[in-house]
Amino acid sequence: MVDRVVFTDVGPRDGLQNQPKILTVDERLSLIQAIAASGVLNIEVGSFVSPKAVPAMAGTDQLVAGLPTDDGIHYSALIPNRKGYELARDAGTRTVNMVLYASEGMAQKNVKMSIAEAEEATRQILTMAADDGVEVVAAIATAFCCPFDGPTDPGVVRETVARFIDSGIEQLVLADTIGAANPKEVRSLTADLVAEHGADRIGCHFHDTRAMGIANVFAALESGVYRFDGSIAGLGGCPFAPGASGNVASEDVIMMLEQMGVDTGIDLDALLRASDLADQLTGTAPGGRAKAWLGPWLEKQKSQ
Amino acid sequence: MVDRVVFTDVGPRDGLQNQPKILTVDERLSLIQAIAASGVLNIEVGSFVSPKAVPAMAGTDQLVAGLPTDDGIHYSALIPNRKGYELARDAGTRTVNMVLYASEGMAQKNVKMSIAEAEEATRQILTMAADDGVEVVAAIATAFCCPFDGPTDPGVVRETVARFIDSGIEQLVLADTIGAANPKEVRSLTADLVAEHGADRIGCHFHDTRAMGIANVFAALESGVYRFDGSIAGLGGCPFAPGASGNVASEDVIMMLEQMGVDTGIDLDALLRASDLADQLTGTAPGGRAKAWLGPWLEKQKSQ
Repeated sequence: MVDRVVFTDVGPRDGLQNQPKILTVDERLSLIQAIAASGVLNIEVGSFVSPKAVPAMAGTDQLVAGLPTDDGIHYSALIPNRKGYELARDAGTRTVNMVLYASEGMAQKNVKMSIAEAEEATRQILTMAADDGVEVVAAIATAFCCPFDGPTDPGVVRETVARFIDSGIEQLVLADTIGAANPKEVRSLTADLVAEHGADRIGCHFHDTRAMGIANVFAALESGVYRFDGSIAGLGGCPFAPGASGNVASEDVIMMLEQMGVDTGIDLDALLRASDLADQLTGTAPGGRAKAWLGPWLEKQKSQ
Repeated sequence: MVDRVVFTDVGPRDGLQNQPKILTVDERLSLIQAIAASGVLNIEVGSFVSPKAVPAMAGTDQLVAGLPTDDGIHYSALIPNRKGYELARDAGTRTVNMVLYASEGMAQKNVKMSIAEAEEATRQILTMAADDGVEVVAAIATAFCCPFDGPTDPGVVRETVARFIDSGIEQLVLADTIGAANPKEVRSLTADLVAEHGADRIGCHFHDTRAMGIANVFAALESGVYRFDGSIAGLGGCPFAPGASGNVASEDVIMMLEQMGVDTGIDLDALLRASDLADQLTGTAPGGRAKAWLGPWLEKQKSQ
């Protein structure tokens, strides 16, 4: 098993875009600052999408302008297309996240494109980003299951990963968009991908819809994956996947990793404060189980 | 990984004894019947303890008398000592569950005995039960962590298992009494025990306090363990472990197993109905995440 991880909190984007309450840019900034204060080094702060389609992400340009540039933290933003890329780049975003698709159903519902069209858009942006000095990370949506098309053929995911590594992408994130993956299939697919491309290229993004999110993190860790996404306080969901609950809660992922002796560099106390803030701001954060754990273990850790 | 499991629902005992509302014997019977109707073949129905100490378990003798004896289901009851054994046997209980301890702190708090005294009591009952034709299963409490003594030395658990297999016990269940185990240590200890004694002798009992319960089930499955406990609707806790939440929800364990292609013989729809009933009866059942999953997968399973 790995002995360190690179953790990305996607709560300010994947989380907040799915909450009924829309936060102000200042509120979003305060949440990002609280997450950053815990030692999380990668934060997805927002998306450059139509404010009509996703009102919660309006003003992401102002938000990015308000972020420090010299604190060693990688602030990234999601972009759906070339226009979003240009907005993100012009706002000063240094890492952009794009979405590829492993199922036609989700590609159509999410961006009204085919898988091939979404891939072509990403390739164009890869070229532009290389010129601009912007890093591109791509997530593969519905990497395990699609609410419209059913279970995903792992071969499709492996081919997508191979194609985009050939296209020069640095990282691909397997996204269990609707929280339908089970740890057996996660273990199998991640083992294949790590064997084929090395662990540096592969990340995992799990939701906890079916209570298997944390088990899926463990299964991927066993395959050597060390890049993981989580969402503060378990904020999340998917607007096109009715019934999907939140992402794995960052505090639960970090708690498990720390307890297994994996170095995260993250202060759990501070992360729990960020989780509390997420709940105060949104009023709808499910919250990780980490808060309900037993005191003695945390106290002992502190006294060591 | 294993391809079938033997599942025990401990909700009517480990679950109900930790709920604020005390159910009538008839209500407890109705919950047991609902669980049995889903195809669960092993149910811990109650305990023969002092009704003053645990009022929720009063009348377990009447309850056992009301159970069928010819339906192929193994109904078991927890006993704390020789008096409890005699009451259980006289009531017609055919499987009794005893508790051993991996930490002195929990042994003292739970039964005011030392580890050695609790083991001696169990050995005496093993002898009596052999004469009476009653099966004995022992759980090792705090097999991973104790709220009073801290992390458990896995060597202590391995020695306890070895001693009791030498004493003729059929099965030993590793109990993460307070839900503090992580999947890395579960994987390691269960792999050692399966290698030493075979999977037939080892069961696992997890709580979900720290959100790792389902991950722990997966880790043990990978070691070859196929005997698992869960509690309908996630009912549970531990009266001496403040802050401990419930056992892993039966419906979540079975959902994961079925989704990974492991044969459980259990009808998830019927199990969810039992979960609903547990919530109606107690008013405090956390409920598994299984209910929140996405419809299409279950619908597809049905149509196959």
